[in-house]
Amino acid sequence: MMNPSASMLVIGDELLSGRTRDTNMHYLALELTKVGINLIEARFVSDLEPDIVLAIQQLSRKYDYVFTSGGIGPTHDDITADAVGKAFGLTVQLNIEAKKLLETHYLKKGVELNEARLRMARTPVGAKLIQNTISAAPGFNVLNVFVMAGVPTIFKDMVSSVIRTLKAGKPVLSRSLNVMNGEGNIAKKLENFAKNNTTISVGSYPFQLKGKYGTNIVIRGQDGTVLDKAFIALSDLFKGSIDER
Amino acid sequence: MMNPSASMLVIGDELLSGRTRDTNMHYLALELTKVGINLIEARFVSDLEPDIVLAIQQLSRKYDYVFTSGGIGPTHDDITADAVGKAFGLTVQLNIEAKKLLETHYLKKGVELNEARLRMARTPVGAKLIQNTISAAPGFNVLNVFVMAGVPTIFKDMVSSVIRTLKAGKPVLSRSLNVMNGEGNIAKKLENFAKNNTTISVGSYPFQLKGKYGTNIVIRGQDGTVLDKAFIALSDLFKGSIDER
Repeated sequence: MMNPSASMLVIGDELLSGRTRDTNMHYLALELTKVGINLIEARFVSDLEPDIVLAIQQLSRKYDYVFTSGGIGPTHDDITADAVGKAFGLTVQLNIEAKKLLETHYLKKGVELNEARLRMARTPVGAKLIQNTISAAPGFNVLNVFVMAGVPTIFKDMVSSVIRTLKAGKPVLSRSLNVMNGEGNIAKKLENFAKNNTTISVGSYPFQLKGKYGTNIVIRGQDGTVLDKAFIALSDLFKGSIDER
Repeated sequence: MMNPSASMLVIGDELLSGRTRDTNMHYLALELTKVGINLIEARFVSDLEPDIVLAIQQLSRKYDYVFTSGGIGPTHDDITADAVGKAFGLTVQLNIEAKKLLETHYLKKGVELNEARLRMARTPVGAKLIQNTISAAPGFNVLNVFVMAGVPTIFKDMVSSVIRTLKAGKPVLSRSLNVMNGEGNIAKKLENFAKNNTTISVGSYPFQLKGKYGTNIVIRGQDGTVLDKAFIALSDLFKGSIDER
């Protein structure tokens, strides 16, 4: 059985101008890997509605899950809810359940639930809410799209509640070997190894250690037994040049 | 005159599995911003040829420039050159100029230029080479696509030589203001400000400082005089709640 496939859409001018360095994609990648959902593609777009709409439509058609990050705050540049509505031809309106969450939260804090904050309770019709235990304003889920906050602490909070509700797959396991020999020297051997082990993926990443070239070989697959056997074969293949630390 | 538009394609399983945290996108974003080329979209795909081909085709059609990172080393999982060739229907073959660069480099190092290393001299027909002052193996340029290495030091080296050859735009300048007031409180004011200043973009980013909510407002535009005027108006608007540090 194939693992579910996933994509991520990161929304926000600040990432494409270089003002902000994204951390959400790396976090999501690790979390999805743990539960056997394969992140196949990620896209970064700016706060332009047509660009967000098109990306949502394309990714939603192509992958089992789409996870978005950013653009669901109270200010004028937060347009993700409207873009998701437009992508699926759904009206975006005040979500009563979301409104109640905000009312409770702001009443407790003694802060006015003004028009701007109420914007955070708008969702496409039929959306299911995603809990935000940090600042109440929820994310939401429409079809196979999960809309979450861009602020990293809130994004993590939302991912942790969403991920439990998804159809998980068989986690992709990995084994890693550091060979103290440059990629160019071991490429042929490694290619043959990959050809003889087609049920696993074989990645090769150069590194430098004290001025010497090394290669980090990563093998990945769903079957632990197969992976262990392959790892022994790989270790034999590069005996004598393995960095043991 | 509009600034040139750009997109980035980051290639590699290791980024989507969470093994590696990308740094190239953030670097490129900052460099492009400096020369007035607008980075509009970035995509991350894995080492699958059909995915790379499709992304290259879509991005190449849509933006003035496409910058890729990753997949040009000597190992079997380095397939970017072939994918770029396929995307444009161009034969991929040994590039004589690239071969000379590698010959000189490896002769000097006393290292054999074997079949695997020669793979790094393969480019689509008609490609122009991109200099690599660190490890010789060049990137290349075909049509509006600039193919560069994934290793961050080499990526930076290549970007610095490529960027000088591009049609630059008018750099997008920015001014930033920290208001010690939550986004929800200032959203209405800020929206009106944005409506009255349509030639600049107005971004709003929440932060926390010693348990208090603040908003970082960033205004961006190409005309420094317009931006300075807008910044004075913005500072007036939030007088009394600006964080001066």
